[in-house]
Amino acid sequence: MRRMLLTLLTVTFPAYALEAPPLQPLQVAELGDFELESGETLLDARLAYRTAGTLDAQKSNAILFPTWFTGTSEDLFTTGAVSAVDTSKFFLATVDAFGNGVSSSPSNSVRQKGDAFPRIGIGDMVKAQHRLVTQVLGIERLHAVMGISMGGMQAFEWLTAYPTLMKKAVPIVGSPRLGSYDLLLWRTELEAIELARKGGDIESAAPVVGMVSALALQTPEFHARATPRESLAKLVEGAKAGAMESMYDQRTQLQAMIGHDVSRSFGGSMARAAAAVEAEVLNVVGLTDHMVTPGPAIEFAELLGQGSVALENDCGHLLFDCDGERVQKAIRLFLER
Amino acid sequence: MRRMLLTLLTVTFPAYALEAPPLQPLQVAELGDFELESGETLLDARLAYRTAGTLDAQKSNAILFPTWFTGTSEDLFTTGAVSAVDTSKFFLATVDAFGNGVSSSPSNSVRQKGDAFPRIGIGDMVKAQHRLVTQVLGIERLHAVMGISMGGMQAFEWLTAYPTLMKKAVPIVGSPRLGSYDLLLWRTELEAIELARKGGDIESAAPVVGMVSALALQTPEFHARATPRESLAKLVEGAKAGAMESMYDQRTQLQAMIGHDVSRSFGGSMARAAAAVEAEVLNVVGLTDHMVTPGPAIEFAELLGQGSVALENDCGHLLFDCDGERVQKAIRLFLER
Repeated sequence: MRRMLLTLLTVTFPAYALEAPPLQPLQVAELGDFELESGETLLDARLAYRTAGTLDAQKSNAILFPTWFTGTSEDLFTTGAVSAVDTSKFFLATVDAFGNGVSSSPSNSVRQKGDAFPRIGIGDMVKAQHRLVTQVLGIERLHAVMGISMGGMQAFEWLTAYPTLMKKAVPIVGSPRLGSYDLLLWRTELEAIELARKGGDIESAAPVVGMVSALALQTPEFHARATPRESLAKLVEGAKAGAMESMYDQRTQLQAMIGHDVSRSFGGSMARAAAAVEAEVLNVVGLTDHMVTPGPAIEFAELLGQGSVALENDCGHLLFDCDGERVQKAIRLFLER
Repeated sequence: MRRMLLTLLTVTFPAYALEAPPLQPLQVAELGDFELESGETLLDARLAYRTAGTLDAQKSNAILFPTWFTGTSEDLFTTGAVSAVDTSKFFLATVDAFGNGVSSSPSNSVRQKGDAFPRIGIGDMVKAQHRLVTQVLGIERLHAVMGISMGGMQAFEWLTAYPTLMKKAVPIVGSPRLGSYDLLLWRTELEAIELARKGGDIESAAPVVGMVSALALQTPEFHARATPRESLAKLVEGAKAGAMESMYDQRTQLQAMIGHDVSRSFGGSMARAAAAVEAEVLNVVGLTDHMVTPGPAIEFAELLGQGSVALENDCGHLLFDCDGERVQKAIRLFLER
C-alpha cells in the first residue's frame, strides 16, 4: 500500500472531526470495451466502487465521490475523507478512478498491460462513472458529486460534461484545468519515470517520484514549523514510499491530470464552460496549495458568479490537517441545506 | 553553459539597477594537495577566481564573493550579481567554489575524476578561499565576505571559522545550516542522480534535476502570476537545461550543502557559533524562499542580536527579481558606511 496520499495522510492527518462510516465491500462494474475520448478503446473496462448508506425510494439522495490521484475507494474510507457525508441521510458511492490499480489500470489490465494501456483522460474517468451511475445504479440525477484533488478535477468535469445530472458539487482542492506550476510539478514526475524507463527499470523511479510529490504536498513553512531536522529521515522514508505501487499506473493518472481541461468542449473558453453549469457549487481551495494551485478553481467559481471557501494556512494541499473540522462542517451544511 | 541559476537569472532577471563591472579574466591559484575536513585529500587543488577594482595600499578594501550552487565567477559578472560592490572603492575577489566545474571538480580533476573525487564540505571551500586570501593575495583582513545562496552559506562559514578575518559579512539567501525542506529538496536531486547512475548514465539525470530545482526556485504564486500556460514549454525547456553540465559536479555541491552546519565546530550549538562571530552582518533573506528557507538564517541573526533584511514577495529564492534595486542599495550602504 505505497500510496502517497494515504501514506502521508495517515501519518499527518488528525482524526477527522466527524465520524466516518466503516470500510464497505468492493464492488466492480464490468463496462466491456470502453471507447475513450482519444479514439482508442479500453478493453474489458472495469470500474470498482464502494457504497455506504441507503438509496432512498426516489433515488434522490446519492453522492458520488471519486478518488484522488494515487488513491483508492478504500483510502477514502480508511482516512476518514468521506466523513463529510452523513450516510444516515445520503447514499454514498465512492469510485476508483481508472489507473489507480483497482479499476482498469496498466498494472491490472489483462489485454493492455503496462505500455500497451491506452491514454486515459479525466473525461474518460467521468464518462465511465456516468455509466455506473445511470446504467448500473439506475440513478437519474445525483444529489452531489464531490472529490478531493484529482477527485475535485473529476467534480469539475462532471459539472461541465453532465450539467443536469447533479444538484450540487463540492470540488475540494480541485481544478478545472491545471495551473503552470502544477504542470511543471507533474511533468517533473513524468520525466523521472521516463528516466527510469530508459534505464531499464521503470519501477525504480518510485522513490524520486514520491519525493517530488512530498516537496509540493505541504508548504515549506509547514516543514519549518513541524519537521525538525531530526525527523528528516522519517520524512524522506515516508516520501520515498509514497508513490504508487506501479509507475505505469502513476504515469497514467499523471497524464490524465496534465491533459485535464473542462474548456476543451467549449472551444477553449472557461466562460462558456462555466455558463453550462447548472448545479450549486461549493469550491474549496487552499491558498497555499502548491500541488493543485488554487487560481484556476477560484477563477472558475467567479465565472459561476460565486466565491470559494479559500483556506489560508501552512498545510498546503493537505488543508484538512489545519482546517479539517471547519471545512467538513461547511461541506455537511452545504450538502444538507 | 547549462547552469541553473545563470539560465534562469538571465531569462527572468531585470537588469540590476546598479552598474556591474565588466567580466574580468580568470586566474587560478594552485593549492597543491589539499587536506579536507573529512581526512581525505583533494589532489592538485585548483582555485579559480576573478578580481575587479584595485587593492589599496593597506590591503584593507577587499571583498570576497564566492559563487552560488551551480554558478561560476563568470556568472557573478555576467548576471550583474556583483553590482552591489562599487569597484571604484573596493577590490572585489570573486571565487569559484570547488565542484563548480571551474575550480577543482569531479569533471575536471585529472587524478580524481568522477566517482573518485573526494567529498567536499562548505568548510573546505572556505578553507581554500582563506588560503587564497592570506597566502596568494596577501590580505590579512577582508573588508567583507558576501555571497548569494550557497555563497551565503560560505559567508556564514567564514563568519564562524575565521571570525577575525573580516570586518563585515553579507549572506544573501544563505543559511548557517539547511532547514528540513531544503534538505528534502536537495536529497530529491541526489536521488534522481543516483537513479540515473544505477541506470548506467549518470548524466541522464540532468533534466529531472533541473526541473526539481525549478520547482523550488520561485514560488507557485509567482508562476500563477507570471507564467501563462502558453509559456509552459519554455519554462520546462529552461528548467531541463538548468542543471550543471556534469552530474558529478552537481552531486559534489549538493552533498556540500546538505552537510553544511556552522555549529559543527561548536558542539552543535548555534548559540556558541554565533557568539564566536565578530563581524558586522547584514543578513538578507526571502520570506517566501523555497530553495534556501529563511528560518535558520533569521534565527542566527537573532543570536547575533540583530535583525534581517527579510523580503516578502512572490519571487522566492530569486528575490532580486522583485526587490533587486532596494536590496542592492541596502548592501552598498552597509558595505560603505
